[in-house]
Amino acid sequence: MAYFDQISKVKYEGRQSDNPYAFKFYNPEEKIGGKTMEETLRYGVAYWHTFTGDGGDPFGAGTAKRPWDHLKGMDLAKARVEAAFEFFEKMDVPFFCFHDVDISPEGDTLRETNKNLDNIVAMVKDYMKDSKTKLLWNTANNFTNPRWTHGAGTATNADVYAYAAGKIKKGLEVGKELGSENYVFWGGREGYESLLNTNMKLEQQNLANLYHMAKDYANEIGFDAQFLIEPKPKEPTTHQYDFDVATAMAFLREYDLQDHFKFNIEANHATLAGHTFEHELRVAREAGMLGSVDANQGDLLLGWDTDEFPTDLYATTLAMYEILKNGGLGRGGLNFDAKVRRGSFDTEDLFHAHIAGMDAFAVGLRVAQKMIDDNFFENIVKDRYQTFETGIGKDIVDGKTSLAALEAHALDIKDIDLKSGQVEKIKAKMNQYLLNI
Amino acid sequence: MAYFDQISKVKYEGRQSDNPYAFKFYNPEEKIGGKTMEETLRYGVAYWHTFTGDGGDPFGAGTAKRPWDHLKGMDLAKARVEAAFEFFEKMDVPFFCFHDVDISPEGDTLRETNKNLDNIVAMVKDYMKDSKTKLLWNTANNFTNPRWTHGAGTATNADVYAYAAGKIKKGLEVGKELGSENYVFWGGREGYESLLNTNMKLEQQNLANLYHMAKDYANEIGFDAQFLIEPKPKEPTTHQYDFDVATAMAFLREYDLQDHFKFNIEANHATLAGHTFEHELRVAREAGMLGSVDANQGDLLLGWDTDEFPTDLYATTLAMYEILKNGGLGRGGLNFDAKVRRGSFDTEDLFHAHIAGMDAFAVGLRVAQKMIDDNFFENIVKDRYQTFETGIGKDIVDGKTSLAALEAHALDIKDIDLKSGQVEKIKAKMNQYLLNI
Amino acid sequence: MAYFDQISKVKYEGRQSDNPYAFKFYNPEEKIGGKTMEETLRYGVAYWHTFTGDGGDPFGAGTAKRPWDHLKGMDLAKARVEAAFEFFEKMDVPFFCFHDVDISPEGDTLRETNKNLDNIVAMVKDYMKDSKTKLLWNTANNFTNPRWTHGAGTATNADVYAYAAGKIKKGLEVGKELGSENYVFWGGREGYESLLNTNMKLEQQNLANLYHMAKDYANEIGFDAQFLIEPKPKEPTTHQYDFDVATAMAFLREYDLQDHFKFNIEANHATLAGHTFEHELRVAREAGMLGSVDANQGDLLLGWDTDEFPTDLYATTLAMYEILKNGGLGRGGLNFDAKVRRGSFDTEDLFHAHIAGMDAFAVGLRVAQKMIDDNFFENIVKDRYQTFETGIGKDIVDGKTSLAALEAHALDIKDIDLKSGQVEKIKAKMNQYLLNI
Amino acid sequence: MAYFDQISKVKYEGRQSDNPYAFKFYNPEEKIGGKTMEETLRYGVAYWHTFTGDGGDPFGAGTAKRPWDHLKGMDLAKARVEAAFEFFEKMDVPFFCFHDVDISPEGDTLRETNKNLDNIVAMVKDYMKDSKTKLLWNTANNFTNPRWTHGAGTATNADVYAYAAGKIKKGLEVGKELGSENYVFWGGREGYESLLNTNMKLEQQNLANLYHMAKDYANEIGFDAQFLIEPKPKEPTTHQYDFDVATAMAFLREYDLQDHFKFNIEANHATLAGHTFEHELRVAREAGMLGSVDANQGDLLLGWDTDEFPTDLYATTLAMYEILKNGGLGRGGLNFDAKVRRGSFDTEDLFHAHIAGMDAFAVGLRVAQKMIDDNFFENIVKDRYQTFETGIGKDIVDGKTSLAALEAHALDIKDIDLKSGQVEKIKAKMNQYLLNI
Ligand SMILES: [Co+2]
Ligand SMILES: [Co+2]
Ligand SMILES: [Co+2]
Ligand SMILES: [Co+2]
Ligand SMILES: [Co+2]
Ligand SMILES: [Co+2]
Ligand SMILES: [Co+2]
Ligand SMILES: [Co+2]
Repeated sequence: MAYFDQISKVKYEGRQSDNPYAFKFYNPEEKIGGKTMEETLRYGVAYWHTFTGDGGDPFGAGTAKRPWDHLKGMDLAKARVEAAFEFFEKMDVPFFCFHDVDISPEGDTLRETNKNLDNIVAMVKDYMKDSKTKLLWNTANNFTNPRWTHGAGTATNADVYAYAAGKIKKGLEVGKELGSENYVFWGGREGYESLLNTNMKLEQQNLANLYHMAKDYANEIGFDAQFLIEPKPKEPTTHQYDFDVATAMAFLREYDLQDHFKFNIEANHATLAGHTFEHELRVAREAGMLGSVDANQGDLLLGWDTDEFPTDLYATTLAMYEILKNGGLGRGGLNFDAKVRRGSFDTEDLFHAHIAGMDAFAVGLRVAQKMIDDNFFENIVKDRYQTFETGIGKDIVDGKTSLAALEAHALDIKDIDLKSGQVEKIKAKMNQYLLNI
Repeated sequence: MAYFDQISKVKYEGRQSDNPYAFKFYNPEEKIGGKTMEETLRYGVAYWHTFTGDGGDPFGAGTAKRPWDHLKGMDLAKARVEAAFEFFEKMDVPFFCFHDVDISPEGDTLRETNKNLDNIVAMVKDYMKDSKTKLLWNTANNFTNPRWTHGAGTATNADVYAYAAGKIKKGLEVGKELGSENYVFWGGREGYESLLNTNMKLEQQNLANLYHMAKDYANEIGFDAQFLIEPKPKEPTTHQYDFDVATAMAFLREYDLQDHFKFNIEANHATLAGHTFEHELRVAREAGMLGSVDANQGDLLLGWDTDEFPTDLYATTLAMYEILKNGGLGRGGLNFDAKVRRGSFDTEDLFHAHIAGMDAFAVGLRVAQKMIDDNFFENIVKDRYQTFETGIGKDIVDGKTSLAALEAHALDIKDIDLKSGQVEKIKAKMNQYLLNI
Repeated sequence: MAYFDQISKVKYEGRQSDNPYAFKFYNPEEKIGGKTMEETLRYGVAYWHTFTGDGGDPFGAGTAKRPWDHLKGMDLAKARVEAAFEFFEKMDVPFFCFHDVDISPEGDTLRETNKNLDNIVAMVKDYMKDSKTKLLWNTANNFTNPRWTHGAGTATNADVYAYAAGKIKKGLEVGKELGSENYVFWGGREGYESLLNTNMKLEQQNLANLYHMAKDYANEIGFDAQFLIEPKPKEPTTHQYDFDVATAMAFLREYDLQDHFKFNIEANHATLAGHTFEHELRVAREAGMLGSVDANQGDLLLGWDTDEFPTDLYATTLAMYEILKNGGLGRGGLNFDAKVRRGSFDTEDLFHAHIAGMDAFAVGLRVAQKMIDDNFFENIVKDRYQTFETGIGKDIVDGKTSLAALEAHALDIKDIDLKSGQVEKIKAKMNQYLLNI
Repeated sequence: MAYFDQISKVKYEGRQSDNPYAFKFYNPEEKIGGKTMEETLRYGVAYWHTFTGDGGDPFGAGTAKRPWDHLKGMDLAKARVEAAFEFFEKMDVPFFCFHDVDISPEGDTLRETNKNLDNIVAMVKDYMKDSKTKLLWNTANNFTNPRWTHGAGTATNADVYAYAAGKIKKGLEVGKELGSENYVFWGGREGYESLLNTNMKLEQQNLANLYHMAKDYANEIGFDAQFLIEPKPKEPTTHQYDFDVATAMAFLREYDLQDHFKFNIEANHATLAGHTFEHELRVAREAGMLGSVDANQGDLLLGWDTDEFPTDLYATTLAMYEILKNGGLGRGGLNFDAKVRRGSFDTEDLFHAHIAGMDAFAVGLRVAQKMIDDNFFENIVKDRYQTFETGIGKDIVDGKTSLAALEAHALDIKDIDLKSGQVEKIKAKMNQYLLNI
């Protein structure tokens, strides 16, 4: 059965096209920087927002009108799989992502939940045979059910922790079954609502133990996916332990997990933490830990996670710059962890929104590659730090000097030839790059 | 000469006193939890705010009226030393803190600056002989002079870096000379104004090298002070590298510095980073890295560092709880990194403000000790996490289980006896503790 | 049938009581400032949070365990009424508040919805006969149902607007039937999601027309309740028109509605708008428009409306100061628009939370009345502005001078005797007031 | 004497130009929408940031290197005038703006200050004869000097108020002398540091009286400039009375000033208040009160006023859309109330920054005009609100219906044909407009 009959496969028509159902900038086959756009961008659709989400918010019921709304339970789950693969094909995306409960309903016990999951996973696997769309990552939703109120891997109750572990075990098995490239941990309830009743140390130790067990089990079953942590500072939990990339790096190092994990970086989580998107990408990249990206955007005048489809070309350009400098995303991808606004409730909006996001990152790729071809940022940085290339500057970088030697160098200096940072000139040039693409 | 003739030594008069120049809650000799309040609280006066600060803000000139306003250069510096020790004695504080440029004017070269500094340090040392007030920490101001525009230890220019290193070398020598308990690194310019022109990796590597050199030099000269990093997320720099405790921990571990540093935690920096004061204290405490405290408070409706004198009794109570659970502050102290409001420009306001802060932490100590005596939080936590004390819970904590074993435990669980977190009940009880002190 | 068998009527036992089900500071019969605490505080229970709310959040399902969970539809609605009046009686509160859909389920049409409502309203009226608890205010929920996605009184569709008008008409009738003291307008969807597709002028004009029609209809049916606007800057809508008190005042004046409305001020909405709670109360009070209060508190480190039970004694004290200076709340009250945390899911937590809030405002009342008895703030202000009591200062206040006269006065002034604002001294004294209560 | 010898007059060279000292998008003579870009954009240079500012911040001294740095007092003031007019000519800007103290040093008394000012104003007037650059607006700086600590028009002291009045009187005279198009009131100290010691009502009444006197005096001397209020929510003052446009409108209406004032809207002030730039422009426009614009941008991850040069093309496009819909800026203009970053300390950066800003608004104008030519937003809005054009919708808009009539319409409605808001589609199209300009 077809769910999106009214819409044909979305194709590249170029920047002048007036067809809302065409790409204006994303041309999958076009080579940019030696690779096709499809190879570099590795777009993924988020199952939860696109097939499971209903547009509800804390003050309002769901608004989304979907052709599967009349169904329930396993029938609903199956219809969504059908719709999803139709959508993947029409949007021409190479990847998708899901949490267990997105694709299959929970049962009364974990055993039942797993049984449901097995059914749907089999169906998904079947669909994947005839589709080019692969699984970018899967994960266990350990945050929606009331049992996770006080945490999952950081639960206050051992049964809850065991339940979380069981769900992760199943998630790893499902990932293996479907050939997932990555497995993601987002700790929506891993943190504290209030420090007043919290044993932070115990919770963090337990979480680390869980991560070790997960890695061991993946090894045991031969599931070689990249393990990713997705930081977020808050929401739903008042204070989440994986606040941002740096915080999660401290945690991973504390518990000797740093070699087993990379990061899945979400733009909106970055800004909620007080960082730019590119900052979080840079921190991860420089540590060799940039794994994958949740491509969305937030509203900086709002204090919650809006998960908007990414359309800000400054953000997509700087993100693509980091990604290109990283040598690409490897096994990761650009997953649209983004939802249509509550007021964009038509099925067509799912297409408009993905087209908006795919075109926005395509523009970002084009601009970033052009700047890299020109060594735009590289020249700025090389010029700015040139005193570190020779003499005492080189000694500093090489760790071959001392306070005494440096003091001797500095004691009688009067004038230092400090160079302007020229941020305004750089920004003007970036606008020119953008508009001339 | 006397600068504060109109004010006598401030003494404890008890909670009913109407004397604005008396302590109502801080009784230095009184034992709380087995130690005198003075021993536990280890108050320090911040030289910069109290003797050097002038009340200026980005839109206005200085307003402070001080008896030393008519002086200049070294005369001004000397008058401030005299005034400082008179103030310390009248406020009965055991510690003070300073940056190099707070106590002594910069010269045209580092050599001259150091010469000035030597003079004033000698004078300070002399005054310290007759005073009970000791040096809690000193540091180098590597952020005010224009040369630090693009960083100090993260400078874009090697001469600037060398200059910074020279100033830190001198700072360590001064610290040794004056018997300082700690040496602090606050990286006001260590970060970036814009990522667009920044080599983050080079800057962080250089900063780490500097820290290693500083530690080496301190060892070399036998200066055994505690080394402290004071995190702050932003301001003046758009993005500071030592964003918060966790971020700085990641940095220290990355560069093998974790055994040589603890943290100086400022309340207002915590909230600018999106954390509570007690969160930052807890994170540091649990890592064994809680070194010292900059006792102030921010205005959460403003987006900059207001460095207000601490008067919020909730904050002081929860801070003192963390400090008491830490076994006290060791060689650290409670430094009032706080400035009187621009509109509180009278000399008397310096006394009012310190009294306000000292009484507020004294109340915090009294309440926190009472809660600890009652095992108030400890009982809540013990009860809440009790399932981790035996059986599978204990196995989890001990790292002696596996996903498979946990899944087996969880597969058929139907009802989990999750306990309410009871935050409202806890907060009501805390109010009762506070009001019954 | 009884829903809270395990809990007896909550009584005042004094500040030393260890009974969690007793008031420690709220003594309804005790006179403070010439009126009983009950008369001044006029506490109200919010039906939605306490009887309808389930603890769900954007990332998680409901957690609340309630004795009526097994019921549905009208049976559920009736059980809640029974429970509510039992709760009112046990908490000894004089008021309650509700939205239409809190008390009675929506039908397929407005006609059906109204029929349901009539049934429940009759039941409520019956219960009110035997209860001291009265209706503080009611309102129409014009934000939850998907039809309100693009606004209600600011709808983009005329049918939606008509539907909203119909619900408000019914709300006014229900208010009259139950003798409500006030009728509240909170515009959760009255604003815009994006300015890009919004006709702001049309929407605001339509909203004003609706308010006029509502007032006309109330007059027509003889419902003389106070009309209240409850400002909120955002959430759920990106930008709400009634951003804060001042914004709503501009709107009311623009559309000649200023004589017909007062304000219902919520603490958490104030802080989301960048103001303190006391600021919003002051602005309304000085305009003679302080009508009623939604007594809760937010978490200033979170960017959304947490609607926590109020426990911050600084906030309750300053709020009660404004309320007492207002001569009390008149027909308004202190409605606990507050929900137990998602993790406080036990029925008992409803009691703990209300006790926490009632005691917190009772402390606020005690402290504020003491400060007023002492003319604490009044003396500070009188002293600070005394130059406006005579001479040129009086002319300024009286509007009897000119730029020329003032220039003549100022031209040769050298020294102005500006007085310190002494904020630190004031805050220290406030702590003393609080702790000595 | 020439201050910027190294730089020639900046000219339009088109989007492909690699010349950093050329406009790529701003072509003054080019007609867009029937007017030249110069006529529409009415750019102004802010004297304070460009000629007086030194790059200092709360943690650091000034960094700017200017060819007039060696001068002092009146010599400095005169050199700046010379430099300013050279800069205006080379940047080809039609307007400039200043505060009194920007152009001329304060004396010991207002009389002396005015004498200094007279000298410089005469010199400025002389320069204006040979220049095309006119005065967009001037104002009195009533916030920097310590006397303004507790307010100017809202002072706590009558002498201070008189002094403020005297400075405004002089400002009006200067404005008349130089033919200023507007006179601006920005209340940097008009608000409160703490509500605890503030008589808000007295302060606001006094401020209103001052505004009335100012208007009267302008009429008296025949100075017919547009009077503008520039709202800002905070900084330097904790809470400024002119929080945002809506708040200032409420104030103006309260004190019967609404017919005498329009608004000068600053982008960075808008975002500090929790609004977008375009929101504030829209609110003012729809009230017929959009007077002029302070063209800059903020950093939404920072909580203070960064006054960056505007380069965000989304913001400039939406701002220009509002301005074009307003029929242009009338006597107002686009004043770059923007400062080069502290690290952009070279004189050349002043040129780079203004070029960046002028090109950014030029792009905004081009894009906005294209969208208006296409009726892009107009068609969206017309379609979205079409049910208000006839029938009951028209009655609603015309205020010709009642709750009863609307209820009758709504009672049996089942399905409402609500349309999607299509925000994602709109944003994608806007990107296309931007990139195709
Ligand atoms: Co995500
Ligand atoms: Co998100
Ligand atoms: Co500090
Ligand atoms: Co600070
Ligand atoms: Co409310
Ligand atoms: Co609320
Ligand atoms: Co401005
Ligand atoms: Co500004």
